[in-house]
Amino acid sequence: MFDSAELGHKLSKEAFDREEPKLRDDLLAAQTELLKRADFSIAIVIGGVDGAGKGETANLLSEWFDPRHVATHALGTGPMDHPHRPHLYAAWKALPPKGKIAVFVGSWYTRALGDRLAKRIDGERFKEVMNDAKSFETMLTSENVLVLKFWLHLSKKAQKKTFTALEDNPLTRWRVTREDWENHSAYSRVRRVAEEAIRLTSTAEAPWTIVEAADREYRALAVGKTILEAMQKRLAATEIPHPPASRLPPRPPAIDDLNVLDKLDLKAVVPKEKYDVELEELQGKLNLLFREPRMRKRSVVAVFEGADAAGKGGAIRRITGALDARQYRVVPIAAPTADERARPYLWRFWQHVPAHGQISIFDRSWYGRVLVERVEHFCSEDDWRRAYREINDFEDQLDSAGIIVVKYWLHISEEEQLRRFEERTKTTFKRYKIGPEDWRNREKWSVYRDAVSEMVERTSTETAPWTLVAANDKKHARIKILETLCERVERELES
Amino acid sequence: MFDSAELGHKLSKEAFDREEPKLRDDLLAAQTELLKRADFSIAIVIGGVDGAGKGETANLLSEWFDPRHVATHALGTGPMDHPHRPHLYAAWKALPPKGKIAVFVGSWYTRALGDRLAKRIDGERFKEVMNDAKSFETMLTSENVLVLKFWLHLSKKAQKKTFTALEDNPLTRWRVTREDWENHSAYSRVRRVAEEAIRLTSTAEAPWTIVEAADREYRALAVGKTILEAMQKRLAATEIPHPPASRLPPRPPAIDDLNVLDKLDLKAVVPKEKYDVELEELQGKLNLLFREPRMRKRSVVAVFEGADAAGKGGAIRRITGALDARQYRVVPIAAPTADERARPYLWRFWQHVPAHGQISIFDRSWYGRVLVERVEHFCSEDDWRRAYREINDFEDQLDSAGIIVVKYWLHISEEEQLRRFEERTKTTFKRYKIGPEDWRNREKWSVYRDAVSEMVERTSTETAPWTLVAANDKKHARIKILETLCERVERELES
Repeated sequence: MFDSAELGHKLSKEAFDREEPKLRDDLLAAQTELLKRADFSIAIVIGGVDGAGKGETANLLSEWFDPRHVATHALGTGPMDHPHRPHLYAAWKALPPKGKIAVFVGSWYTRALGDRLAKRIDGERFKEVMNDAKSFETMLTSENVLVLKFWLHLSKKAQKKTFTALEDNPLTRWRVTREDWENHSAYSRVRRVAEEAIRLTSTAEAPWTIVEAADREYRALAVGKTILEAMQKRLAATEIPHPPASRLPPRPPAIDDLNVLDKLDLKAVVPKEKYDVELEELQGKLNLLFREPRMRKRSVVAVFEGADAAGKGGAIRRITGALDARQYRVVPIAAPTADERARPYLWRFWQHVPAHGQISIFDRSWYGRVLVERVEHFCSEDDWRRAYREINDFEDQLDSAGIIVVKYWLHISEEEQLRRFEERTKTTFKRYKIGPEDWRNREKWSVYRDAVSEMVERTSTETAPWTLVAANDKKHARIKILETLCERVERELES
Repeated sequence: MFDSAELGHKLSKEAFDREEPKLRDDLLAAQTELLKRADFSIAIVIGGVDGAGKGETANLLSEWFDPRHVATHALGTGPMDHPHRPHLYAAWKALPPKGKIAVFVGSWYTRALGDRLAKRIDGERFKEVMNDAKSFETMLTSENVLVLKFWLHLSKKAQKKTFTALEDNPLTRWRVTREDWENHSAYSRVRRVAEEAIRLTSTAEAPWTIVEAADREYRALAVGKTILEAMQKRLAATEIPHPPASRLPPRPPAIDDLNVLDKLDLKAVVPKEKYDVELEELQGKLNLLFREPRMRKRSVVAVFEGADAAGKGGAIRRITGALDARQYRVVPIAAPTADERARPYLWRFWQHVPAHGQISIFDRSWYGRVLVERVEHFCSEDDWRRAYREINDFEDQLDSAGIIVVKYWLHISEEEQLRRFEERTKTTFKRYKIGPEDWRNREKWSVYRDAVSEMVERTSTETAPWTLVAANDKKHARIKILETLCERVERELES
């Protein structure tokens, strides 16, 4: 794979000086167009062997582009890396909004490559991380991020020459570390691991471009011209047809009208006296669970979904009431802001992935994609169809990072909703809770019913199961939620 | 994930009898249309727990459809499974041509599920196989195969009831095996493994449909109606736009004109006397290597590509000359037949994957996709762009199955080609080797040069490297090829 990058590509200083001004003009023009249209963003990954000039290349890009709209990130090393969070957390945080460019000198590859070289992870685990990277980039591409990946390559000889030259100069001696020389002596292993990473993550949407890096002028122009060409192509592109997916429903077309929601006994009731006792008990239990030493290395993500007026807020308050304010964060999800719309739809939820010992409670969540956005056609069928998988991947990553994922669907009958709507309309202090949109949603009851059913079918997993809650009686719902939450956390802490 | 399939879906015998004739009519009509258009094929996977009626369902499908155009396969168990070949070999062999339907009662999932249940493979390995299945199905979808996957589900209770009922009847007692009961007692593990498989391989293109299987009438109608709906949708579908990929070249846009092919010293020559001695020696060595006991568990795939008149045939004869006729197969690749065009492009090469102890020598190969098909626009840019990855996956699967992959590009200069063409025209017995197409190809020399360079860049890997061979001197080329072949096989047998 590196054959073309060991040919001795070179460019004279004069030729570079001749070409650079034109390249800069063109890059700036493309960036201006990108900013103006703001219908996609760019993520540039600069990987490569030690001494290949990754940092220099990143610096050059901030020089060439209007730096106000370019952010440079160095993931995979040091404190930026959020050790308590899923390994893609830092990458998600750093995603550029539409119109902007992010340059990753260290990327979602850096840590895995280092771990594999140092044999901290085995080959199977490495493949798994590469596969995550591939899925991540497929998602980015689908969400209108142009992903450009460069691998700056040096032959073993060229690497030695570079290191020696840097060491000979007192001003640059510090650049060469002992680790650099260690990696150099394991050069063939580095090369093999890099090749595997490139092979496993080169897709038609986001291929790697391998650049011979020994000559500084050639390297700079090669990277610059490749970026320019890709930007121009993307700016000129219209959509490309691809063969239709099979788009099967998870359940067969209606044969009978049975639905997961029918299993629920909406008549279930918990009487006042029993409720008071049980609530007290369960809140006490939850509080103790969150004080457990074992909880310091775990965290919880709780998702609340349900029809309007199903009682999500009240249920959430019964959880937070049991906890210390420093332990929880309630995240209410409304329509996305402009800033959020400018990024892949999961981005805003990644912002609230909890640190160890914490619980993040989502009042509505990423499931909006397959509920309201599906029903109201806020996104295309393609978008919500692929969302099931993206969501499962997301929750799987949370699980792998030791985060306990619980999900509640609060279900009420149409009649009960009507009763609550009318009550809200009549009660002054509840009136803010109801608007014309709520009445409109009511008309789509059966469409939502199908969407909920498909959601549960596709995303209820062993590691992140849905709990369907009969919520016509609020007390019953709250007890059920606290009970299952305590049970789940207890079981997880013991495992 | 199985919630909707534990609701107790049921259909009365009468309702079934009412609905079945209409369903059969519609299925036949859809099949007729499929046969007529023959622009896609259908692969139906029927998975599920023991006792869920997988076989019965397959039988029903051959009853409903015109059986002349439906083939039923049971992979994953027994002698059909080609233990010496890559694990997808049987699946490839069974792919239906356009217009036809294949039903897989055992599929590319069967063996992995069984191995995982019996703990013969660990979780990481299982994930890897599932990932292979996913890539395989993505490729199928891109190649116009409609992939429909069903999981027939029984709750633990329903499974017990089914087994007991079968055992109580002397006529069906044989259907329940000890393994069935063993799996039954490990039901929750079966469920967990199945869920993971479904989660890892559900994509927007090829999702799983989960069907409650306890009631025979419901199950039959559910599967039938789902297939019908998917067929009708696909028959009605036009192409769907998706966002343009970045489509980067592997090398930066031309900055200098250096190319991997330039490394070759086309002046290299091996004199006659030296050639005779070395050829003899190398052929002897190769012969001995193929008689090695260790070779009985390995095999070789050798690919020969090169410009017209580069000397592929002669080089191949120097290899086969060293071997026993039972050990090798030479596979000349010309334009695909109608039968081959009706299936994914890699299909015809899978037919020639060698058994243990064998070598398959391809005179031209799957690389046609990224060479002639690319240059002549026989396929779309999308098609050849994704081919690099599909080819790497293919060769990786060969490697995992212990097959040694060697690839040769025979390179000659434009002048040398002209000399050989003219010689062919003049020599009577060589005249059949040259036609107007060869002269036309010559005009595209530089386009081919780029395609070759990108091919080497993207597909030369540690496990399946390209060897570029300077072939202006035929003797030099042959010695080089035999030398590297012996070296590689020797090294692999030692590892």
